[in-house]
Amino acid sequence: MRVLLYRGDGRTGPWAEDLAQALPGVETVCWREGGMLAPCDYAVLWEPSPALLAQLAGVKAVFLMGAGADAILKFGDALPSVPIVRLGDAGMAVQMAEYVAYACLRYFRRFDEYEEQARHGLWSPLPAYAKEEFTVGVMGLGKLGSRVVEALRGFGFPVRGWSRTLKDLAGVDCFAGMEALDDFLRGTRVLVSLLPLTPDTSHLLDRRRLSTLPKGAYVINVARGAQIAEPDLLALIRAGHIAGATLDVFRNEPLPAPHPFWEEPRITITPHISALTVRAEAVRQIALKLAAFEAGQPVDDTVDRNLGY
Amino acid sequence: MRVLLYRGDGRTGPWAEDLAQALPGVETVCWREGGMLAPCDYAVLWEPSPALLAQLAGVKAVFLMGAGADAILKFGDALPSVPIVRLGDAGMAVQMAEYVAYACLRYFRRFDEYEEQARHGLWSPLPAYAKEEFTVGVMGLGKLGSRVVEALRGFGFPVRGWSRTLKDLAGVDCFAGMEALDDFLRGTRVLVSLLPLTPDTSHLLDRRRLSTLPKGAYVINVARGAQIAEPDLLALIRAGHIAGATLDVFRNEPLPAPHPFWEEPRITITPHISALTVRAEAVRQIALKLAAFEAGQPVDDTVDRNLGY
Repeated sequence: MRVLLYRGDGRTGPWAEDLAQALPGVETVCWREGGMLAPCDYAVLWEPSPALLAQLAGVKAVFLMGAGADAILKFGDALPSVPIVRLGDAGMAVQMAEYVAYACLRYFRRFDEYEEQARHGLWSPLPAYAKEEFTVGVMGLGKLGSRVVEALRGFGFPVRGWSRTLKDLAGVDCFAGMEALDDFLRGTRVLVSLLPLTPDTSHLLDRRRLSTLPKGAYVINVARGAQIAEPDLLALIRAGHIAGATLDVFRNEPLPAPHPFWEEPRITITPHISALTVRAEAVRQIALKLAAFEAGQPVDDTVDRNLGY
Repeated sequence: MRVLLYRGDGRTGPWAEDLAQALPGVETVCWREGGMLAPCDYAVLWEPSPALLAQLAGVKAVFLMGAGADAILKFGDALPSVPIVRLGDAGMAVQMAEYVAYACLRYFRRFDEYEEQARHGLWSPLPAYAKEEFTVGVMGLGKLGSRVVEALRGFGFPVRGWSRTLKDLAGVDCFAGMEALDDFLRGTRVLVSLLPLTPDTSHLLDRRRLSTLPKGAYVINVARGAQIAEPDLLALIRAGHIAGATLDVFRNEPLPAPHPFWEEPRITITPHISALTVRAEAVRQIALKLAAFEAGQPVDDTVDRNLGY
């Protein structure tokens, strides 16, 4: 069996080694921009170019090295008409839970303010916020969102969730669909986005919807930057309606310098590190999915092109 | 029934209201420095003075408004020979879990470094630490320590625990007693103290024991400042053996200015806020304990003066 291995960043070496171990007998095939692709049974890739996609019509399926399908689905009609399978939770869910719990606790327990006080040698306990007034609203209740919800519930935060279709999660007040979005936002003190980037979610959090959050709300984005209208978020923070934001993803990455986000102390910026793919776990998962596909079994996380994830 | 209500900080008002609601028919009695105490059945207090303690011989029991007994037991022979009952978990355990999880995640996920980078407009993902090399060692496995352990286990941290007597906690490598302390410390990457302050734990973490931690270890103290030899901790951080510390408690509080801790960027200081007593919950608990005592039933969290907590 021959498998194309490709990454837009060129770092295929360690993936090839891990894949060879996980799928003994597989021959991995490389491709370089401008080259001709040798015949392959499958493709395992991340951030492909149009020239590569044009040569993938003959593979049986494409396996992505990440959980997001937006970087490939954006090519639309240029995609080969073969199944595309993304990663499920390959060690990312617990990292997301860590990141979101950390950011929530930082705001809820006022650790950012204590740090600022300490920089000035100031010892001054602040009034505690009431947890019952600190509802965390999680957008996206798939494998990652569910794990985030579990961590937040563990600390006793009231949690509500919003998703495309209605979910049933213990202890979570669930909302679904566009018609419920405003209601969901109105009762959300800390907004967390874990949504896939699709035509429906692009620019979803615009000025009107962000304004629907109550005064003093906080925004955490660990999904994709294009879901938030960045100038609107900044304006609402500067106007004092939104208290601040912790952002791991941006419309343009790396976040360019200069960018007004860097200058706004109420915005905490991390360089897209909320959930790093654990290569060993990703390869193990791809190998299992590929074997299942080869055996004609259903494969988890097969992308639905209409839904966009 | 007459109950003395006293706080060293003078803030008895809201406690009196809550106690009157929780124990209808109780008459609350006040006392001021230099005064004579009217006869009382019980005392509910925090940070008493020697003059007050001298007048408490006639009460049936003393109930503390906090979980730590060190601030009263330090009076030793001046204490009345009546039972002293401290708070168990009155809403403090989940706060401790929040604080410790936050501080662990901050160090493990390198959020402090990302903040420093962001201040300079720098976008640079850092290599992730391996969780299996991030064993958190929790000292003190009572009600607070157990809750902290639960939160850490929820994120998949390897956890070990140390206590006076051997505990059995699911998923936790348990150590007990002085003879096991060095072994415990040697395998601890993040050290968390939740120990009560007693003659045995005072100055427990001195230069030798802190040096037993592996290079790159991190220290979180949410118990009492006197357990750590502060100059030794500072010296080991400056020498690079200990990576840093998050400290909520100090030998002298408020932490005086100037103090070298304020100047050390690897030390994060909070003003003793890791677990604030939730008054409503504390009063509810004291009322239940007082009723149990009055009914001749055993009372949880009765202080053992030999053990010191």
